[in-house]
Amino acid sequence: MLGIDPGLSRCGYGAVRSVPAGPRAEALGVLRTAPSAPLPERLAELQAELRVLFAELRPDVVSIERVFFQVNVRTAMGVGQASGLAMVEAVHAGCEVVQYTPNEVKLAVAGDGAADKGQVQTMVQRLLKLTAPPQPVDAADAAALALCHLAHAPVRQRVAAAAR
Amino acid sequence: MLGIDPGLSRCGYGAVRSVPAGPRAEALGVLRTAPSAPLPERLAELQAELRVLFAELRPDVVSIERVFFQVNVRTAMGVGQASGLAMVEAVHAGCEVVQYTPNEVKLAVAGDGAADKGQVQTMVQRLLKLTAPPQPVDAADAAALALCHLAHAPVRQRVAAAAR
Repeated sequence: MLGIDPGLSRCGYGAVRSVPAGPRAEALGVLRTAPSAPLPERLAELQAELRVLFAELRPDVVSIERVFFQVNVRTAMGVGQASGLAMVEAVHAGCEVVQYTPNEVKLAVAGDGAADKGQVQTMVQRLLKLTAPPQPVDAADAAALALCHLAHAPVRQRVAAAAR
Repeated sequence: MLGIDPGLSRCGYGAVRSVPAGPRAEALGVLRTAPSAPLPERLAELQAELRVLFAELRPDVVSIERVFFQVNVRTAMGVGQASGLAMVEAVHAGCEVVQYTPNEVKLAVAGDGAADKGQVQTMVQRLLKLTAPPQPVDAADAAALALCHLAHAPVRQRVAAAAR
């Protein structure tokens, strides 16, 4: 289970595994591209890094933030482009792709759809039993996306089973 | 020289070659993905079709619309994702990637940064000496992106030469 918080300068990732004692972090971090490089090269570099990440972590499901462009017009383009690349790489890696809005993620991990970045970081730390808040915040957001799917997965499975 | 008007439902392309008598259309059309298919599969399909297109047309330069998300929030996400995929495929195909805003394109082909879609279609038809306006409008917009670069290229070359 891999969460991806898409972005061009910083693309957060958080791999979480569900064990009987609860969710556990397997890998948390960010992929970066140099803002000084030309956009096409940055996108190609991000794609290559995502490919390596998926090959190393071999997630079954990839949970990606569903982006709304109103939020931040300045970075929206890069976020949209990064999310598209992440989804395509996930498909190529044979993963199921799920998407959640920022509100769904905050509601799932902090119990409040309007939680701030700090609250999400704190809750990710608690839920994953980390010794410190995950840094940078993009890695925490990515882990939150994975945790959000773990919270929703049982419901989704029941819905799918009922539909059969 | 290949123009790409990025989009998820319809991604326009227009390949234009500059010959002594003026610009000539080599290929005009659109790549489509089914709106009913899941987003990750649509993006993967678009990527595959772009790859085939670049392999067939072997452009030296790819001119892609620089998107502003304010324009149409509903389709903005798909446009951003499609443009990112197009840029990465262009890099992999060894192409130079250039970007122009809609205003720059309209100014270059219609002499008016506020020209409407119909005016652009008509001017693309005239400049490429086509017997009918290129259809659909996404193909015309893509050809206009290619024509815009052909108009700018001499200036860019002089600037690059002066910088050496």
